Parts: sequence; C-alpha cells; structure tokens
Amino acid sequence: MQLKNKILKMLEEAKAASRALASVSTKNKNKALLAMAKALLRDSRYISLRNARDVSLARKNGLSKAMIDRLTLTDERIKDMADGLKTVASLKDPVGGVIRQWKRPNGLLIKKVRVPIGVVGIIYESRPNVTSDCAGLCLKSGNACVLRGGSESINSNRAIHEVITKGLGNFGIPKAAISMIDTTDRKAVEILLQAPEYVDLVIPRGGEGLIKHVAETSRIPVIKHYKGVCHLYVDKFADLKKAIDIAFNAKVQKPGVCNAIETLLVHKAVASKFLPQVVRSLEDADVELRGCAKTKKILRGIKSATEKDWYEEYLDLILAIKIVDSADEAIDFINKYGSGHSDAIVTKNKKVANVFLSRVDSACVYLNSSTRFTDGYQFGFGAEIGISTDKIHARGPMALEELCTYKYVVLGSGQIRQ
Amino acid sequence: MQLKNKILKMLEEAKAASRALASVSTKNKNKALLAMAKALLRDSRYISLRNARDVSLARKNGLSKAMIDRLTLTDERIKDMADGLKTVASLKDPVGGVIRQWKRPNGLLIKKVRVPIGVVGIIYESRPNVTSDCAGLCLKSGNACVLRGGSESINSNRAIHEVITKGLGNFGIPKAAISMIDTTDRKAVEILLQAPEYVDLVIPRGGEGLIKHVAETSRIPVIKHYKGVCHLYVDKFADLKKAIDIAFNAKVQKPGVCNAIETLLVHKAVASKFLPQVVRSLEDADVELRGCAKTKKILRGIKSATEKDWYEEYLDLILAIKIVDSADEAIDFINKYGSGHSDAIVTKNKKVANVFLSRVDSACVYLNSSTRFTDGYQFGFGAEIGISTDKIHARGPMALEELCTYKYVVLGSGQIRQ
Repeated sequence: MQLKNKILKMLEEAKAASRALASVSTKNKNKALLAMAKALLRDSRYISLRNARDVSLARKNGLSKAMIDRLTLTDERIKDMADGLKTVASLKDPVGGVIRQWKRPNGLLIKKVRVPIGVVGIIYESRPNVTSDCAGLCLKSGNACVLRGGSESINSNRAIHEVITKGLGNFGIPKAAISMIDTTDRKAVEILLQAPEYVDLVIPRGGEGLIKHVAETSRIPVIKHYKGVCHLYVDKFADLKKAIDIAFNAKVQKPGVCNAIETLLVHKAVASKFLPQVVRSLEDADVELRGCAKTKKILRGIKSATEKDWYEEYLDLILAIKIVDSADEAIDFINKYGSGHSDAIVTKNKKVANVFLSRVDSACVYLNSSTRFTDGYQFGFGAEIGISTDKIHARGPMALEELCTYKYVVLGSGQIRQ
Repeated sequence: MQLKNKILKMLEEAKAASRALASVSTKNKNKALLAMAKALLRDSRYISLRNARDVSLARKNGLSKAMIDRLTLTDERIKDMADGLKTVASLKDPVGGVIRQWKRPNGLLIKKVRVPIGVVGIIYESRPNVTSDCAGLCLKSGNACVLRGGSESINSNRAIHEVITKGLGNFGIPKAAISMIDTTDRKAVEILLQAPEYVDLVIPRGGEGLIKHVAETSRIPVIKHYKGVCHLYVDKFADLKKAIDIAFNAKVQKPGVCNAIETLLVHKAVASKFLPQVVRSLEDADVELRGCAKTKKILRGIKSATEKDWYEEYLDLILAIKIVDSADEAIDFINKYGSGHSDAIVTKNKKVANVFLSRVDSACVYLNSSTRFTDGYQFGFGAEIGISTDKIHARGPMALEELCTYKYVVLGSGQIRQ
C-alpha cells in the first residue's frame, strides 16, 4: 500500500509537470537540454563510480559478457549521451506545429495543431544511456516521462537521473518532468501500468519477454518496439548484382539489430543462378545458412530450415533461405511469418514492385535497397526513441513528431450550431 | 472451446479479407457501397420485420422508452442508413494518399503513405444503424470490420448484415470484410479482445459501462469514445451578448449529446452582470441550474453544485455554474474535471485566448464559438465513426483518415548502409 501511494503520488506529480512542460518555450527546452548535456560531462566521474557498482554486482551475479558490456558506461559512452542531448536540442520543436488548417463555410477556422501527448512511461532494460536519451526526446517533445530501467542498472540510472534533473528548475521546468521509479520492486511497474489517469502512453524497450509482459498487463496504450523478422525477396526480374550486395548488407553489416534480415526469399527462376553467387560472400562472412527443400537441392550440405525458423529473429549470423514460385507467394509468406517491421524486394519490374510495396503489410517496405535503413537517423529524423512494430499512432522509426498527438483549435466569432 | 474456435476462425477470415480489401480499387469500393445502399432500400421490408422482433422482445423485457426508440428502425431510418452509405461512397478515398515524401542524401526516396489499419472491431449498443454506418466507413478506408452489436438488437443487426454483405463478391471484396459476431454470448467479446494477432484496433461505442469494460479487458489497442464533460468559460474580456448565445446553444440545442456543455465557468468580474442575463433564457428553456457558493449569491434559490457535479455528464437540461477568479483557475478546473472532449472560451483578449487554447488539454478547444461543432460533419470530414477522447492515434472527430495508419515506402536503386 505504501509503495502504491508512493508511485501514484509520483505519477500525479509527473502529470502536473507535463501540463507545465507543455507550455515551456522552445528556447528554454533547448537551454535545459544543453545544460543536461553539460552536467553529464561535468559529473561523468560520479556517474562512472555509480556505474562501477552495477558492473561489479553484475559480475558477482554472473551476468553474460554481452549484458555486462551493455551495462558499462565508458567516458566515450557518457560523451555520446551528452552529444545525443545536444543533437536533440538542435532539432525542430514539434510542439505547436500546424498539421493542417481549413475554414468552414460558417467562418470557423479549424487548426489541427501538434501537441505533447502528456506523460510517457518508458520501461527498459540494461543500457543506462536509455535514461538520458529518452528523457531528452520526451523533454523536447513537451512530454513528462516516467523512467523505469532494469534492476541491474539501477545505480547508474539513479546517478544519470540525478545529474540531468538537477538544473531543470532554472528553465521553468519542474523536476517531475523527468521522473524515475527508484525501486527495483516489480510491483511498481504493475502500479504504473494500471494508472491511465496519469500516464498517457507506455513504450517498452528491451527483449521479447519485457515487451510481451508490458503489452499484456497494461491498461495504458502501449507502442511496442517488437522484434524484426525482416525479409529480402529477390524477384525473377532482379538485378542480381544489386541483390547480392543488398542481401549481404542486410544480413552481415550489423546482424544483431532488428532491421537486419532473417530470411531470404528467392524466385525459382533465378534461384540456381543467384544462390551460389550470394552464398559465396555470405559464407566468407561466416553466415550459417538454413534452407527449404528446394534451396538444399542447389546449396547442398546446408542445414534444413524448419517451420520454426521462418518465425525466428536470429539477431545473429544465421540466414534462412526459401525459394518461392512467385512474388505473390513471397508477399503471403512475409505477411504470415514476418513481424511487420521492414521487408525489401529487388526487382526491375515496376508492376511487381508496386504489388509488393502495396501488399506487404509492414512498417517499412523497400525497393532495391537494404532494410538496414529503418532507423530514425537514416530516415533523417535526427533522433529515434525506437521503431514501432504497431500500427496505431506510430509505425516504423519513432522520433519527436511521433511523441506528439494533436488537438483541434477552433477560432470563431460567435458561431453557434443551427 | 467450440465458441472460441468459431470466433477465432471468423477473426482469421476477417484478417485475410483485410489483406484483400486493402488493394481493392476506389472504384470497386464505391460501387460496393452504392450496392449496399441499394440493397438496404430493396430489402427494407425484410429488415423492418426482423427489427419488429427485437422491438417486441424489448417491450416484453421492459426496456425503457428511450431504448426502444433507439432500437426502432422506421422506413425513414433505413433510408438514412442508405443515404449514409451513398455519402461515404462520395468521399475521397484516404488509402494510398502520400502524407509526405522526401529524398535522402543517398538518393533514397521515402514516402509516408496512408494505408488501412487492418481489422477493426466495433463493439456497440442498441442503435442498429451503427451496423451499416461502421461497415461503410471501414470498407471505404480499406479495413475489414468485425461488428458486435447489443443483444437487444441482434435480429436487426443480423438482417442488416445479411443484406449489405450479399453482393460484396461482385466487387472483388470477400464477405468476411464485413464480419459479424452472430451470438449474444458475452464470452465472444472476451475472445475477440484477447486476439491481437487478428484484430488491430477496437472501437467501443456506447455507454460508460461498455467502454470501461472494453478498455479494461482488451489486449488490442482501443480508441475510446468516452463521455463529454464540456465547459464554456466566459472570460472577463468576453463579449457578453455572444457569450449568452453560445452558452444557450451549447447547453440547450441538443442536450443529450457529448459535445453539449455541462459546466459554465464565469469570471468573477463579469458574473453579476452576465449570470442574470444568461439565466433568463436558460430558465425559459427549463434548464435546471446548480451553482457554486458564489454563484448562489447572484442567482438566489438555485440548487447547490457539489464536487460530484463537476465530474458529471448530465446529457440533460442541467447546467452546473462556477465563478472563477481568473482564466488560469478556469483552465486548471477544466483540466481537472473535464473529460478532454471540447471546451470553449469567450473573450476578446487575444493573450488570454491563446493561453486558454494552448493550456486546456482537450481534443477540441474553441474561441468564441459553441462546443456543439465537435462533429465529423461539422468539421467537414463528411462522416464520423465517433469522437475520440483518447490521445493516441486519433483525437476528436474520427472519420476515414483516422481509420488509417501509414507505412513507409522506400524507393532505392541499390542503396546499402555504410
């Protein structure tokens, strides 16, 4: 009960802070962001010391090397966090932008205006840099945030939070605009997820387990940044040289990310020519291949892909390969097994391209280019809070505009309804 | 188990139908809508007979006169349903519209394109016209819908559904694009609300109980069309003549709707002049007044407003009145007690107006005009599936564009990520 009251009180303060933050000027928000960046650099030793505690606990608890690496804050990483905040300060303020306006026959002028959402809950794991990244993006878009990091990084997150919120008051921004759930008690998250009166949106960032749990328990709208089971389809009419480069790039350049491909679909008419060529470079890069029965007739000796493989997000140097009879089969396959993230076609045939781009039901669909471009920076947004695999509100790379909603401002001169 | 399998099979078919419908041409969708309208008129006798069954059952079960009225389908109402479908046919197709496009330095052309959401579940009560209204809006916006009406109108809904879906195949649209849950078993709704793999969005339409229940149980994103606790604030700098007309219009013209006002806020500087004037016309219209202590000093003999009144959506000829010390107090009051629907200010002072319009956190904020304009038709959308009081995805009047999401179509010529 005590915990519940404590959390609800914090959320209530965050809500009040969101109302105040919504009308803070762009100038003051930018000044605050730059001050936050400065504070991170100034207090980097303090943050490092706190981080060292988390790292030593993680070692003691036997966390994996990869997890410890994600957890560790080097000077370089603290500088990156500060640079991130500076970049956000330099981006255009989305708040107040008029999306569209029109006049009605009765003289009413209706403006659809971009406004902050309110309070955004961010639930994340391990990487402590998320604390300042998300705080910066929410602040710039006029949203109060409630941060809840993983228990393994609680000391680091606390330190970062303390450092970046210290000076907010100087710019007319209440401290509660960047709130943090300062306990590792899991019940705290449940309380937050059941408080739609205070929190307007929840963004879970992390592994599949976390995201599923949040989506299933939340009574607040959730925008999921879920897995990326991405495909490249090499069509009958493909430029095979380009297809080889794109397949290699989409699989190998950074295999551990959501916009890397997991499955290669190849039209049967080009399979026997294309596959042996592409496989040469893939195998040079140590990519493990898993093929359908037809693929295995061309690429003898590779592993078999099972039904389970088609659903898998390997996040690793593994590639499933399937030969299809038509672009339609490829499209249906992607819509069935994909995660609605990013899917590409290589073809010179405009008609096939248009059918693919229109019928594949994913956030980002690519013609003759790598799926690796699904990213707020690559899209030119200058930032990214994540990549939505949901369809409601925001889809694909999410940045400042997607952290806003809108309101209708209606200007009249005495109009009443007849 | 049998019910679960049956419902899941229906949802799976709706999902498949949504994929097909997403690429049906505008021409065919419009032809289908006109054919649906024609079928309603042709088979109106059949629909009336089925409706008579619901009405007689409702009488037997002792439903209120108001509910029986909402349930009854006169020839006039069936004609209205047909006209509604014709109107939707005449509206611009939102699907495929390019919201914005830009070129990246590497030559990639990124298009943000409007696309259907997928499968929309509509859960509604009593009025059988919702069946054809929602089916039409979903069809035009390329969405499959799964309709679930109230048990009291099941015979009417079945008949309408049967009539409007009969000819869909002639236009390349699968029948399952307009699906209906054909049982009054409440478990069916629970099954739907737990099936995010098939249903992309749920819109509950009806009373507070229904909406709350759906919002609390759903694992699918919900856009609530919740209550309207709307305010009119008469500022110190108001044109009082306009304020009287607007107050009267917003309360009396149609009191039973969500965009009518429930509370009148008056600046103390104008209260003693304004209130006696506005009350004359309100009392002539039989409006019951409930005032705060200060109001009661001016309007002697009226009822007292309690804390509960400030939260109330009367949907009736009742008006709560409060005198405030400042525009800021009015704004805070609205943000505390309002439902984020529609709120208006009457003032000649630009600065006060801007503060009010910016700080009041509602879907629609009005300057010198009646809140009664919050409506898809009044906004010029040509249609309306409801008025969202949520902030995520759609806010305020929701029509065809708001029934869409977007995807990014990225056109390249061999680009790979460096």
